[in-house]
Amino acid sequence: MSDHPRADGARVLADLNTLRGFGTYKTGVHKPTFSEPHLASLRWLEQRLPEAQLAATIDGIGNVLGTSTKPGRKLLAGSHLESQNYAGWLDGPLGVVYALEAARVLNPDPSINGAVEVASWCDEEGHFGSFLGSRSYVGEVGEAEIDAARNRTDQEPMREALARAGLAGRPRLTAERGRHIGYLEAHIEQGETLERERLKIGIVTSIVGIWQYRITFTGEQNHAGTTRMAIRKDAGLALAKFCVAIDERFPTACGLRTVWTTGRITLDPGAPSIIPGRAEMLFQMRDDDPAVIDRLERLLHEMATEATARGPCKVAVERLRRGAPALMDGNFQDAIEAASASLAAGKSLRMPSGAGHDAQFLSAIMPAGMLFVPSIGGISHHWTENTADDDIVTGAEVFVETCRRLLSR
Amino acid sequence: MSDHPRADGARVLADLNTLRGFGTYKTGVHKPTFSEPHLASLRWLEQRLPEAQLAATIDGIGNVLGTSTKPGRKLLAGSHLESQNYAGWLDGPLGVVYALEAARVLNPDPSINGAVEVASWCDEEGHFGSFLGSRSYVGEVGEAEIDAARNRTDQEPMREALARAGLAGRPRLTAERGRHIGYLEAHIEQGETLERERLKIGIVTSIVGIWQYRITFTGEQNHAGTTRMAIRKDAGLALAKFCVAIDERFPTACGLRTVWTTGRITLDPGAPSIIPGRAEMLFQMRDDDPAVIDRLERLLHEMATEATARGPCKVAVERLRRGAPALMDGNFQDAIEAASASLAAGKSLRMPSGAGHDAQFLSAIMPAGMLFVPSIGGISHHWTENTADDDIVTGAEVFVETCRRLLSR
Repeated sequence: MSDHPRADGARVLADLNTLRGFGTYKTGVHKPTFSEPHLASLRWLEQRLPEAQLAATIDGIGNVLGTSTKPGRKLLAGSHLESQNYAGWLDGPLGVVYALEAARVLNPDPSINGAVEVASWCDEEGHFGSFLGSRSYVGEVGEAEIDAARNRTDQEPMREALARAGLAGRPRLTAERGRHIGYLEAHIEQGETLERERLKIGIVTSIVGIWQYRITFTGEQNHAGTTRMAIRKDAGLALAKFCVAIDERFPTACGLRTVWTTGRITLDPGAPSIIPGRAEMLFQMRDDDPAVIDRLERLLHEMATEATARGPCKVAVERLRRGAPALMDGNFQDAIEAASASLAAGKSLRMPSGAGHDAQFLSAIMPAGMLFVPSIGGISHHWTENTADDDIVTGAEVFVETCRRLLSR
Repeated sequence: MSDHPRADGARVLADLNTLRGFGTYKTGVHKPTFSEPHLASLRWLEQRLPEAQLAATIDGIGNVLGTSTKPGRKLLAGSHLESQNYAGWLDGPLGVVYALEAARVLNPDPSINGAVEVASWCDEEGHFGSFLGSRSYVGEVGEAEIDAARNRTDQEPMREALARAGLAGRPRLTAERGRHIGYLEAHIEQGETLERERLKIGIVTSIVGIWQYRITFTGEQNHAGTTRMAIRKDAGLALAKFCVAIDERFPTACGLRTVWTTGRITLDPGAPSIIPGRAEMLFQMRDDDPAVIDRLERLLHEMATEATARGPCKVAVERLRRGAPALMDGNFQDAIEAASASLAAGKSLRMPSGAGHDAQFLSAIMPAGMLFVPSIGGISHHWTENTADDDIVTGAEVFVETCRRLLSR
């Protein structure tokens, strides 16, 4: 292996730590889309790309793209730079820095017939919408969606955020069909499978679909002191009972890897002395088998009908989002496996991704692959998220070697 | 009875409808404390008081007081003028207009040995704190509490709201000990007991205590796609199970009239793709027997200990507020009953109040009484709250006659 160009692990760690310096929060970062630390991260990447012989552009939706004029094959690689609120330092930046490192190592090398082009997709974390950056690049985002988008935390309209960032009026870049042999993305696993199995590299086979629902409970708002228990129609209590019923009944109908989550609950009006007349929960399920999801969705509707019939509150289930699973390309999986055999002692595992990623949208227009590195304790979307430095370096080496193999076919 | 001065029912209805004109919302009002419609209501009352031979003052916390120079006994009467958000038109204004009417009828009458003085207590509905107006009048509110108070909806500091209202720097009026023979307040029942029993007047025997708690669930925040169900520590699910357990176990330990309510639930961080690591509920219980509450509070702590032991989340119970029940004066109850016998065909009932009222704080420094009128369908704290016009008029007549009897002893 010593013949092949190899990742510079120290440089990768240094870059990741530099990015952690923008919007530092404890050992993680607070870097919401279009916040000052996020914009500083985009500018940092823009300045690094020429080192990899790439011309940098930040487009009208905040995507950063580094393009090459080198002849030969082009492989697109990247991830995202913004974070969830008060979250981890590697979720996103890891994949961007790996892509940058691959481009720095491979693009100047005349023995490589082609180049790695680098992308940072904007708003993968969904502060303003759903995967707006990568969906824009594949041509799925219209102007009306941007007009309507608002920051979920402070309600700032996306148009104002783009203007504040100096990006208003810039064109949005879209994929030039046929330009790329495919898209490769690295990411932290965000689960504990690799750590538990003492493995170094996850080879993603598919990205699960995400189905999302608003479940609404309608009762009767009334005074919390004067309304006897026997005649109450407490929408909050109806919601709590429904959550417990899901917990009891879903395990009898789910698949091996199905997950479901109630992430947000709102009681209306939400005052201590008022019986809630209305309550709402955001409910999500994920599986890589649409048949399982169909079965669970039917169960959810059945349970709502039963609860309404039992009373005293009405339960309504509304689907907000339906995401089909995305398959990763077989040749990309093989290339990652071969690179792992050389540089990670074969400690790799083929596995589905339970999280959504930009790769699922890129996979609609070109072959796509994903590589995971282990997450300590499986922790994700929290500032304590972390990966051992050694694992970060091994991941970088496998990533660069995978790119080399894909460009060398 | 025709000898005695009597309420003018048409004038009472006209005044209540005038007050509904400030901050109208559907058939109710939206009149939070120190909102423009609330301030307009205070100014309206200030202008009416001279018609009842009362000198008007709005003090440094927004209480309106009408004081008399007539010799003889003084009876204090009133209620409040602000509303809950998007709530009913009578909750508060009914008692203020009854007091105004009693003062208009009785104060100019030379045969009455004394006068009714009128009060509108600020922020009974708790937008900024807990019964700040009446508690200020009885000497229970320090400057530090006002410094810290913020509007629960928009977080405006109370000091800024007072400055906006032109009240900053005004002195706060406190009760002159020995001045009043007592305090009388009328209110809508906010429950369905009077309506169900086809009665016209509720004679309040006691005002229940309110105990309030913050119950906190601590689990582990993680990714909603990558974290297997088996290893989750979902604080939101723990909360839902706790609500259902309260619903199952409280009925075995409560009293006949105990009520309990979860009015607000917060999941942290509250995003659809994140397993909540922390959850919080505001929980309240009310009873007129402190022994019942003590028993339930012990049960609540037991349940939290059991849930923590069972895992996977920790449950903590913290008491925020402990309100002892307040007894209404026996002579006041007798006076209301006698007035009901004359003017409401005896259709009255002695009953506890499940809701908190300013009278409970006044009762600490002088004899106090309360009178209820029926609420249609028992609806309260909602814009559809209402009382039949006939019942409003009957209530006004009984109120004025009760004042006459109390002043005539």
